[in-house]
Amino acid sequence: MEKMKAAVLHKPFDVRIEELPVPEVKPDEALVKVKAVGICGSDVHYYEHGKIGRYVVEKPLILGHEAGGEVVAVGENVTNVTVGQRVAIEPGVTCGECKYCKEGRYNLCPDVVFLATPPVDGAFCEYISMRADFLHSIPDNMTYEAASLIEPFSVGLHACKRAGVKPGDTVAVMGLGPVGLLTIVAAKAFGATNIIAADLENIRLDMAKEMGATTVINAKEKNVKEAVMELTDGEGVDVALETAGSTATNRMAVDIARRGGKVALVGLPPKPEVEFNVLNIADNELDVFGIFRYCNTYPTAVQLLASGIAPVDKLVTHSFTLDQSKEALEVARTEKNTSIKVMVNL
Amino acid sequence: MEKMKAAVLHKPFDVRIEELPVPEVKPDEALVKVKAVGICGSDVHYYEHGKIGRYVVEKPLILGHEAGGEVVAVGENVTNVTVGQRVAIEPGVTCGECKYCKEGRYNLCPDVVFLATPPVDGAFCEYISMRADFLHSIPDNMTYEAASLIEPFSVGLHACKRAGVKPGDTVAVMGLGPVGLLTIVAAKAFGATNIIAADLENIRLDMAKEMGATTVINAKEKNVKEAVMELTDGEGVDVALETAGSTATNRMAVDIARRGGKVALVGLPPKPEVEFNVLNIADNELDVFGIFRYCNTYPTAVQLLASGIAPVDKLVTHSFTLDQSKEALEVARTEKNTSIKVMVNL
Amino acid sequence: MEKMKAAVLHKPFDVRIEELPVPEVKPDEALVKVKAVGICGSDVHYYEHGKIGRYVVEKPLILGHEAGGEVVAVGENVTNVTVGQRVAIEPGVTCGECKYCKEGRYNLCPDVVFLATPPVDGAFCEYISMRADFLHSIPDNMTYEAASLIEPFSVGLHACKRAGVKPGDTVAVMGLGPVGLLTIVAAKAFGATNIIAADLENIRLDMAKEMGATTVINAKEKNVKEAVMELTDGEGVDVALETAGSTATNRMAVDIARRGGKVALVGLPPKPEVEFNVLNIADNELDVFGIFRYCNTYPTAVQLLASGIAPVDKLVTHSFTLDQSKEALEVARTEKNTSIKVMVNL
Amino acid sequence: MEKMKAAVLHKPFDVRIEELPVPEVKPDEALVKVKAVGICGSDVHYYEHGKIGRYVVEKPLILGHEAGGEVVAVGENVTNVTVGQRVAIEPGVTCGECKYCKEGRYNLCPDVVFLATPPVDGAFCEYISMRADFLHSIPDNMTYEAASLIEPFSVGLHACKRAGVKPGDTVAVMGLGPVGLLTIVAAKAFGATNIIAADLENIRLDMAKEMGATTVINAKEKNVKEAVMELTDGEGVDVALETAGSTATNRMAVDIARRGGKVALVGLPPKPEVEFNVLNIADNELDVFGIFRYCNTYPTAVQLLASGIAPVDKLVTHSFTLDQSKEALEVARTEKNTSIKVMVNL
Repeated sequence: MEKMKAAVLHKPFDVRIEELPVPEVKPDEALVKVKAVGICGSDVHYYEHGKIGRYVVEKPLILGHEAGGEVVAVGENVTNVTVGQRVAIEPGVTCGECKYCKEGRYNLCPDVVFLATPPVDGAFCEYISMRADFLHSIPDNMTYEAASLIEPFSVGLHACKRAGVKPGDTVAVMGLGPVGLLTIVAAKAFGATNIIAADLENIRLDMAKEMGATTVINAKEKNVKEAVMELTDGEGVDVALETAGSTATNRMAVDIARRGGKVALVGLPPKPEVEFNVLNIADNELDVFGIFRYCNTYPTAVQLLASGIAPVDKLVTHSFTLDQSKEALEVARTEKNTSIKVMVNL
Repeated sequence: MEKMKAAVLHKPFDVRIEELPVPEVKPDEALVKVKAVGICGSDVHYYEHGKIGRYVVEKPLILGHEAGGEVVAVGENVTNVTVGQRVAIEPGVTCGECKYCKEGRYNLCPDVVFLATPPVDGAFCEYISMRADFLHSIPDNMTYEAASLIEPFSVGLHACKRAGVKPGDTVAVMGLGPVGLLTIVAAKAFGATNIIAADLENIRLDMAKEMGATTVINAKEKNVKEAVMELTDGEGVDVALETAGSTATNRMAVDIARRGGKVALVGLPPKPEVEFNVLNIADNELDVFGIFRYCNTYPTAVQLLASGIAPVDKLVTHSFTLDQSKEALEVARTEKNTSIKVMVNL
Repeated sequence: MEKMKAAVLHKPFDVRIEELPVPEVKPDEALVKVKAVGICGSDVHYYEHGKIGRYVVEKPLILGHEAGGEVVAVGENVTNVTVGQRVAIEPGVTCGECKYCKEGRYNLCPDVVFLATPPVDGAFCEYISMRADFLHSIPDNMTYEAASLIEPFSVGLHACKRAGVKPGDTVAVMGLGPVGLLTIVAAKAFGATNIIAADLENIRLDMAKEMGATTVINAKEKNVKEAVMELTDGEGVDVALETAGSTATNRMAVDIARRGGKVALVGLPPKPEVEFNVLNIADNELDVFGIFRYCNTYPTAVQLLASGIAPVDKLVTHSFTLDQSKEALEVARTEKNTSIKVMVNL
Repeated sequence: MEKMKAAVLHKPFDVRIEELPVPEVKPDEALVKVKAVGICGSDVHYYEHGKIGRYVVEKPLILGHEAGGEVVAVGENVTNVTVGQRVAIEPGVTCGECKYCKEGRYNLCPDVVFLATPPVDGAFCEYISMRADFLHSIPDNMTYEAASLIEPFSVGLHACKRAGVKPGDTVAVMGLGPVGLLTIVAAKAFGATNIIAADLENIRLDMAKEMGATTVINAKEKNVKEAVMELTDGEGVDVALETAGSTATNRMAVDIARRGGKVALVGLPPKPEVEFNVLNIADNELDVFGIFRYCNTYPTAVQLLASGIAPVDKLVTHSFTLDQSKEALEVARTEKNTSIKVMVNL
């Protein structure tokens, strides 16, 4: 049995480079040689705390679920990809048989197997075997880094789709981590012409402009709600997209949406209870949408990035080898104000 | 100038029967001889407190906005109704020119003129003049009481439409005042087959069954959330409709919706801030819809009530003459546990 | 290996009762003892002509795809049904992995395996093995005949869903075979209050009234288009549902829809080219929806039929044993004016 | 009473420059000094034939309904525009009171008053008075020519909205007159990444590329259907947009849409009956949408053009003065292969 290298998390802060067997390939799977893996906030959280909510790292775990690579073997039933093809990996494998899968909302499948969510191993390794229908071919002009960015981009696309962002809309994106920044790109793809982006860090605000934000607000310098209201002549935005995961921005999302507007709650606040102003929701007849991952976004994302909609590769501020996985995680953990997307390249 | 009788609110608890001029009829208006007017919670609130939020009774006001009557004169431009026609009165006259009116959400029109909202007079009087496009013909088999009930029924229809209630759905209606009870009828019209209704009063629970509820829960006897979960095998309902206007039911609505479910917030809680569990909203990917009045519901409501969908006339538990308007308001104010809809018949 | 009886079509008009092995049960399948199978027009067509379009009966084929039965064995991975459960069988097994399956339109799955479509065997036999996610539990108060009728009912539900039938609508159902009659029930479930049904045969028009039609038109006695226009004050219907499969009704569907109305094309005309009046489609801004089978309808249909929405069992005009399958097919073939649904009961 | 110049059509080919009174301004109207008017195919048709269908030029008529200008006076009730503001004129004034207006589909209003549709005068004149809610402010960076192009652009936006064009889509636009060319821009605004455009003339194909088409097909050189199928790996397009108004392209639209795809019929064929392949519509479960003008597009269009989405000013190939209106109409009539949009500038 062939061996491969993998970065394995044993317990908080304990990441070891180990030799593991190359995974076997089932009939409907393909083996992918991993080329680029982005570090997500959840990877950092497992690295630091060993758990997220009810998901606990109880045995050694390979992290990483934002990945692109090259197909090197395919199972006998696979028809959608072939050896040599460059692919983006959609990291949640769903059952295809439950009510949610059948209705087209497979992100709600209760039996999803999601990379790097204990006890399922992720992509910080040389090879990964995936059900082939979750592999999406990418064109030659797209980098593996861009392929791995499709995962956070998908969250933004899903949020904009559910919230019905449409041509000519004014939207606000609150919180400019990678998901927030890619939500700007998504809003642009849906036709939004006025994209207001808010964050505390100038590095992120500058990046927001590169991604397509038309106005940026530094929340250290200005009251975001007041600034948004001023920018919209007191009306509020068509769609408020909360991507910070703070209690304050969750609450604010409902307050800055215009009469008849929409709100997408993407980021999870540190404690689940948030006080919303129900009068705003009811009197302004808002639609408030919870956002959980994404579905059916990868083919769309490939088309959009291939069309050159935004220079998303610029989001990669740091790059490491697989052997440096621990350093990569440390940078992502400690340099929040100077890093955006930390990438492991193989 | 002809005179008519009207019940006029001068200050809290001070309702006087007075002689006022019959309103004149503009070219696009019709004059309606009022036949039945239901008392709404907002009428009682103005009667008791002299104001609702920023709306203050500063000069004498005629209450009443749930009304049916007979057309007795029409302006020169009116084509949709004729003298002698029996009609339901849609009480909010909108501008027809703003963005909301043009997009089909005229309930959000900022320039709406709404009956019995200071300083606009309402329908506790013999004649009322209305823009004719807000008068809806009713068939002979529909009573004027039913015509007046279209107003609260419209709130339920609008909530079910926005929340996408569909055939085979399981829904919960929490709070069984007239709006809640008519929301049951609305849910039935949209095809819901399992309608769980909760309230504190047995009279309302019994009425809920008459309106089409398939299961009722007395919230004094059972924990509603637990009961709903038990009834739905732990899954929650497809659509949770909050019609009580309490903080607890607003919060609960988000907790009893199933994964991928929907929530309609119809009732306003006593204080606007409500703590919602955002984890439920996000992880279950809920849609939460604020509901403000209604639009485009009257023609639908006429069709549904004419088809005999539910014995809505039974909701009228008390009936008074115009001269007895104060008694009517007093009953509505004090007998909340024994009355459902108090009607003034002319 | 255990044996079972099956009615096998060898060539046109040649149906033989044979002994065949009971099918084996794969890990995600359940074995169903068939209790009732309805005969569909497609069964009759294969029986008479040995083919439908590109689907040719090249080796002996078991017909029948509208079936209900009892689970008698389950594969090791099955969790949604248990032995002893009464079920309706959804006859098209889809891949769960293609774009259409993932987007919730699994009826468009190019790899569907559909019962009684050559070379896939159907349900005129004692036992059938099905992927368990296509088995839907039915309650005790539902007959196996009703379970088998869910298949044609699903076509009607899917058509009404796609065409957006909504409470208070006026719809026309043109053509009252079993699909047309069950489309009436579906329209009622979606809240239509005025259901105009047209056909050439009085037996079907009478049945239409039992299913919920509010007006029926005998197309031998009246010009259907004129009659519909008269019934709708010259406006046309909100939704025109073509269920006859004739060239004339396809064309007419576009002519009887109101300005802004919708059209669902359910029945296939004998030759594919149909002349539509594009001026009506464009000037009236119609939506014309093609309908191909159905998806996600079975759970809804179970709820609706269990709620007693219509006495669908009355549609079964003839009943035969499995041994009489040929007689059953003959009745369905020759007695089109006196039979509605011919059933084989086991 | 002040006078103004106007180009008046008396009978086919007879256009005269005349002095007419400046129109008076009603309380809810504004007076606009016309700055640019585009010539539409319907203007040319009236000029050439004196009628379009049931609309006949029975008395002298001012043509022109694609216009931009400057507000020079406002009625007493007007609040949305002020003197000096630059505006685009939406040419159809609707009633605001009928079912269609109330439901947000005001383009279907039966009482619409549409510029340059007999007997309503149009915009080939110095001043025009319009209900102010149909005037839309444009920013300083938008030309009056662009403002006038919003009218045909609106048709494209409405078609893309109804047909649900979405990010990543592959669409085909068949027929590249101004509406077709601006439909390309609309499809781009809705996020389409692959826009296939077909026409017979290279000038239009070149312009299509400037507007955002990613592939162009000269229908003289290639079979369009075959070319589209080849470009889409035999699948067909997500959305087929018919903008040519020919029988052949209407029919083809249904044949080049993919399984589950959508079709928008924008152009009217010379004779209303068109043979469609119903098998394609039904088996592929297409949605076919008739398109009639547009509604709620102007604010969106202003945002999109202000954002610089496409160099639409390039569509103006010829420019004339008001005195040269007849020459302008002649060029539009006779130079179909060398002109795109002919503009009258005042």
